[in-house]
Amino acid sequence: MRLAVIGVGLIGGSIGLAARRRVGARVVGWDPDEAAMRAALAAGAIDQAARSVGEAVAGADVVFVAAPVGALPSLIDQALRASDPSCVVSDVGSTKRTVVQAIDDPRFVGGHPLAGAETAGVANAREDLFDGACWYLTPTASNPPETLARVRDLIASLGAQPVSIAADAHDELMARVSHLPHVLANVLVATAAAALERADGAGRSLALEGGPSFRDATRVAGANTAIWRDIYLTNADALIEAIDEVIASLLDVRQALAGGDGEKLSAWNERARAARERLG
Amino acid sequence: MRLAVIGVGLIGGSIGLAARRRVGARVVGWDPDEAAMRAALAAGAIDQAARSVGEAVAGADVVFVAAPVGALPSLIDQALRASDPSCVVSDVGSTKRTVVQAIDDPRFVGGHPLAGAETAGVANAREDLFDGACWYLTPTASNPPETLARVRDLIASLGAQPVSIAADAHDELMARVSHLPHVLANVLVATAAAALERADGAGRSLALEGGPSFRDATRVAGANTAIWRDIYLTNADALIEAIDEVIASLLDVRQALAGGDGEKLSAWNERARAARERLG
Repeated sequence: MRLAVIGVGLIGGSIGLAARRRVGARVVGWDPDEAAMRAALAAGAIDQAARSVGEAVAGADVVFVAAPVGALPSLIDQALRASDPSCVVSDVGSTKRTVVQAIDDPRFVGGHPLAGAETAGVANAREDLFDGACWYLTPTASNPPETLARVRDLIASLGAQPVSIAADAHDELMARVSHLPHVLANVLVATAAAALERADGAGRSLALEGGPSFRDATRVAGANTAIWRDIYLTNADALIEAIDEVIASLLDVRQALAGGDGEKLSAWNERARAARERLG
Repeated sequence: MRLAVIGVGLIGGSIGLAARRRVGARVVGWDPDEAAMRAALAAGAIDQAARSVGEAVAGADVVFVAAPVGALPSLIDQALRASDPSCVVSDVGSTKRTVVQAIDDPRFVGGHPLAGAETAGVANAREDLFDGACWYLTPTASNPPETLARVRDLIASLGAQPVSIAADAHDELMARVSHLPHVLANVLVATAAAALERADGAGRSLALEGGPSFRDATRVAGANTAIWRDIYLTNADALIEAIDEVIASLLDVRQALAGGDGEKLSAWNERARAARERLG
């Protein structure tokens, strides 16, 4: 198997490592950042650094494009044009509607592995990054079954669990379980910062160390801006809907707090407990 | 040292375990739940189960009242009346203004250890629960220095780091680093539940397993209702202020999303990153 990885950061690098070691694939990489390509070679994530997208995908059986969402349509288009007619192209973008709408080609299958949120760069790449992880695929009616099968089989060989889902459903789901938590982490850290900076030094640092709920809720605050700006922009409508639901819920809680309504607060907390247990 | 623990749940039980094993204290416990007292005896958290608050505090050097915030004023008052004039009384409530305002006694020092949020009950009590944890104390001008010193020294012997803070400042800080994260966890889990239940089974469970930001942000959703209702009610004003800040921030983000304003989203994300790095 010959593989091309366009973008050799955390995700692209981990694909390369897993594909080389577990599938015995030959992996050619390309990245606009030459230092990243040298690091990918040194880490064993790629066999060869290409000088262009076209050189990287020449002769490949499968191409993974692992770049910020805003850069995907152009890179996927280049990969489709330069590769063999039998080559399958996929991506790893965190939102799927934009790219699936932009690329109308039976050789393209959109994808999104749920892995690797907190670190970045090929230095953090790991062969086992995808082990057990959900890897969404968003095939369309235009994809021949064997095209989808090739991507699914390869993803499973990398350790992940492929799950097919419509691009719309994917983006709505991610708005709630990923993008909204990131928005709330950003909001929470900013809201806390002012109050914490008014507190004295010892009380402040100890409150943070000792407050697991704050630490957990803000772990992803200020995640990689280049990646997250594009995610927010390409899933804005679903995220706005989720934000509006949050604001409505907060106004409800606010009303119960202002009225000293212990029964309403109890019922609201019990509903949250039930929802968490149902989901968990 | 003779210690009384009023309420032998997770916190009261852990105080008892640490005081018996690390200070060699004799610990008498009382709890309205007789099964909890039997479990506390069996776990070695107390030497003796008392039949009343009065019996528990008779002869004690220090009393810790470890009950939901709404029950504190009455229990602390009983402990102060029934104990020796030399006995010092403290509590472990998560909000401090209400109790400090209700109890006007030089022998009372309010307290709040930052530990043990996710579990409850003496079955989860641990001798090392407070190791390295911040344990806020809210002394007032009426407390003699030796009263405060006795509580501080004992808390340090239990493994915690005592930090004195004004009750107002404590409640404002906790509104941001603890109570608000709990509110947002509740809101997030409810907002996600509907979308997740629309998704199919495999995609749903895998999204949750693979979405660390959601898991982290909702870990404390639906925390112990008896405890949290009282926390919310007794810190309602500070929490409402924090909620209003969150809503204002969300409306800002919403505007940037609706306008497709990538620059504003980037700047907002960078500010969150800076705040998180500043807070450590």
